[in-house]
Amino acid sequence: MSQMRLLSCARLLSRGAAQSEIADFVPLFSRKSPSNTRTMASKSLTIENINPNILKLEYAVRGPLVIRAAEIEKELQKGAQKPFKTVIKANIGDAHAMGQQPITFIRQVIACVTLPELIEKGGYPEDVRQRARDILNGCGGQSVGSYTASHGIELIRRHVAEYIERRDGHPADWQDIVLSAGASNAIKNVLQLFCNQIDGKNSGVMIPIPQYPLYSASLAEYGLEQVGYYLDEDNNWALDVSELERSLAEAEKKCKVRAIVVINPGNPTGQVLTRDNIESIIKFAKKHNLFVFADEVYQDNVYAKGSKFFSFKKVLTEMGSEYSGVELASFMSVSKGYMGECGLRGGWMELVHLQRDVQANLYKAISAMLCPTTLGQAAVDCVARPPREGEPSFALWKKERDGVLASLNKRAQMIAHTFNQMEGFHCNIVQGAMYAFPRFELPPRAVEEAKKQNQAPDVFYAFKLLEQTGICIVPGSGFGQRPGTYHFRTTILPQPALLQQMLNIFKDFHAKFTSEYK
Amino acid sequence: MSQMRLLSCARLLSRGAAQSEIADFVPLFSRKSPSNTRTMASKSLTIENINPNILKLEYAVRGPLVIRAAEIEKELQKGAQKPFKTVIKANIGDAHAMGQQPITFIRQVIACVTLPELIEKGGYPEDVRQRARDILNGCGGQSVGSYTASHGIELIRRHVAEYIERRDGHPADWQDIVLSAGASNAIKNVLQLFCNQIDGKNSGVMIPIPQYPLYSASLAEYGLEQVGYYLDEDNNWALDVSELERSLAEAEKKCKVRAIVVINPGNPTGQVLTRDNIESIIKFAKKHNLFVFADEVYQDNVYAKGSKFFSFKKVLTEMGSEYSGVELASFMSVSKGYMGECGLRGGWMELVHLQRDVQANLYKAISAMLCPTTLGQAAVDCVARPPREGEPSFALWKKERDGVLASLNKRAQMIAHTFNQMEGFHCNIVQGAMYAFPRFELPPRAVEEAKKQNQAPDVFYAFKLLEQTGICIVPGSGFGQRPGTYHFRTTILPQPALLQQMLNIFKDFHAKFTSEYK
Repeated sequence: MSQMRLLSCARLLSRGAAQSEIADFVPLFSRKSPSNTRTMASKSLTIENINPNILKLEYAVRGPLVIRAAEIEKELQKGAQKPFKTVIKANIGDAHAMGQQPITFIRQVIACVTLPELIEKGGYPEDVRQRARDILNGCGGQSVGSYTASHGIELIRRHVAEYIERRDGHPADWQDIVLSAGASNAIKNVLQLFCNQIDGKNSGVMIPIPQYPLYSASLAEYGLEQVGYYLDEDNNWALDVSELERSLAEAEKKCKVRAIVVINPGNPTGQVLTRDNIESIIKFAKKHNLFVFADEVYQDNVYAKGSKFFSFKKVLTEMGSEYSGVELASFMSVSKGYMGECGLRGGWMELVHLQRDVQANLYKAISAMLCPTTLGQAAVDCVARPPREGEPSFALWKKERDGVLASLNKRAQMIAHTFNQMEGFHCNIVQGAMYAFPRFELPPRAVEEAKKQNQAPDVFYAFKLLEQTGICIVPGSGFGQRPGTYHFRTTILPQPALLQQMLNIFKDFHAKFTSEYK
Repeated sequence: MSQMRLLSCARLLSRGAAQSEIADFVPLFSRKSPSNTRTMASKSLTIENINPNILKLEYAVRGPLVIRAAEIEKELQKGAQKPFKTVIKANIGDAHAMGQQPITFIRQVIACVTLPELIEKGGYPEDVRQRARDILNGCGGQSVGSYTASHGIELIRRHVAEYIERRDGHPADWQDIVLSAGASNAIKNVLQLFCNQIDGKNSGVMIPIPQYPLYSASLAEYGLEQVGYYLDEDNNWALDVSELERSLAEAEKKCKVRAIVVINPGNPTGQVLTRDNIESIIKFAKKHNLFVFADEVYQDNVYAKGSKFFSFKKVLTEMGSEYSGVELASFMSVSKGYMGECGLRGGWMELVHLQRDVQANLYKAISAMLCPTTLGQAAVDCVARPPREGEPSFALWKKERDGVLASLNKRAQMIAHTFNQMEGFHCNIVQGAMYAFPRFELPPRAVEEAKKQNQAPDVFYAFKLLEQTGICIVPGSGFGQRPGTYHFRTTILPQPALLQQMLNIFKDFHAKFTSEYK
């Protein structure tokens, strides 16, 4: 194995690789057979001539810690003795994997459009059956096996526009709605439009620190400049305009800043922005002619008293015609909220105030990818146009939705409360989304020990936690944090009893860790 | 409306935009309301500073002709009087939209994993129920609402590897299988690895002319050089090594050629490569150190007597260890074959002989996109591991599959036969895939008239055909053709009676057109 290969393998292990990937990745190196010849022959694609942006790209949510967690799971299955019996995956916002039950209405509609005989024979409520018929009427040949228009089925885009109108109290045009396979795809499609040099400078995009690593990964992939701005942890992770100005001024030395990403409710930070805060951000965007990416996939996940979700579209609209030039793309997903349907890959974006020919070019670019999955689109339809009072599925739908949200609310409170009881921990209230991002102190000896092992201190801590307790979290360095501070992201998704158990174990671990390295 | 905007709108109209997009695109320009301000205010994204690769990108399969077809459909719905009653969409390989029925086994399995109560209550065959249980066991929390590993559920990757072993008679490693949302996604993921400069030159990728425009669109999007090689129409669209050498030598003046794309069975050309031809291509790839993209999504669609599908993997393996350095990615989809499940977005690729760290970086890049749709993966599972003799779903599955393939076979013959009876037409036998790509002559007066109207002559012809008959095909210029020749692509997907009717109408149209312009 050449030096270069060893280096790049190590680099990979220290960076990103998909969950359960260890199952693929590690045996790749232990295979016998003709694999030795792999490096002998001359290759078209080598680590030296591969797209350098792909080398740079990192995605911590499915990184090395998660790889190790999957390994441990396999070891446990094989009967290995550990101080714990199961791995608790608090690393990824994957609600169903942590025991959340699907919303019946969504699943009944999808089953009916998949196997249309169920519409007549399945005994489902009339609103389920009618919805299935409506969706099938929007499909070529009345089959979900047909391609749809690249931006999705017209009926569903209309339902999304109506949803937005109900939410905001302002008109939405269905022709500005694009359905997508989850929010990630849509975000990348819009980001990609900025790949260009302006006056000899690369385009830059402002992203929060800490941020959801899809953004850092996609910016790396597209060769766009990442312009980080710090969220104000002492002000419950609000955006501070003076920090935005500082970040922008510094970045403009090296690139042309063209857009700003805001995640509200926050991931990994759990804050819900106030209306005032959103107004200031929009003023900042207008002043500097920035395109706004509003990542609003957690819009249904608001828990704290006094917190309320305001969409950027609503606030922008209400700021009046002076702001009618500010370009905005707002993203939504069926993976989060009360439905948590990550695996179905459904989402949408609303485009606001884009130049028409820019929007037309975006639509053209999307068309080569054919269309988002029809069944994901069906899930979007159920979310955009849920059962209404008086309709037969309403009561059950409401019970299920309210149950999920109430339970998440309880868990959001439980988690911040527990962390704040722990020595050296500070955890902001989880106002929304699905995560807590506590700050914690590390004894100097632990920091030294981490350095010796060539690990970031928060990574060192997270690995110890995993090996000793089976709890898998994501170190703060995967999201970004102010130098010298340590955080991690944990989801609030384990079901209440498991979450309580996890927090108890965590508390014991932290006390032990602190005394060990004091 | 500025000159520049008019220009770019025209450019868009003459290029690509999604099917049914006219419903979105045209009214975008007739809206009143505050839209005028759209161009007044200064914008972050304009047609001047947008990613120039996105401007260049074209995708003819959903281009202006298709936009016009959708318009005509809406006109007909509103009661417009035309010489025809329906639009026949022969432009896109969308089987279900043209009346093909879904395979029952696939749909039953998907319904069961979506709504697991159906496993017990639905009365489905035991193999359907067991398959649903197996897939759910591979999902977190036993729900298709969970994320899977980014390269897919392990069980399904294993089934794909077994499918390939049965097909080729050679081992396949499930760890080299990546599930994807259709083949297009996977193709783009691999293409993207080549974005790099080598010795100051852009990387280039060889693609057939005519080609499936996903390739030209993706190369434009990624800024990779398109290196076209002509298929040999007089030799039933075979690949001619001397033409490959010519193309390569010419391209190497301006770029570093690193890969070759082969589509077998061919799209739009319908040929099935002989084993000898595949061997020559592999020798050529080895000689020039090229990575091979084998687009084999039509592997089940082989009709002609004497034609047989050989996978590149099989031929490469049987060429012995001397060729064990040749890198190959083979792509497959559930959108084609006998299943035609385009809307479900399921596919896979097999990676062969890649450097391990290159493959690991590819896996890492995929991980940021989370995972392909679980229900698309379920469809992949049903295709990779269909019912077997003795299993309860086998008889129906076989009857449905054989029925579709026999009917496609009949239509493939009918279409070539009819075109070859038409004056000035030459149509190669449709050995495989889902398309015919006939060459036809145009009277000089028609060519002149097209020039007057600023249209390519084949586009002029296709628009006349659409307006006079409602038949929608894609002009050859969307796929590439030798200068001075004219072709079009039509699918063989209209059901037999409709196809016969379409061919009769086509014949009359062509006779009339020819006499009109003679």
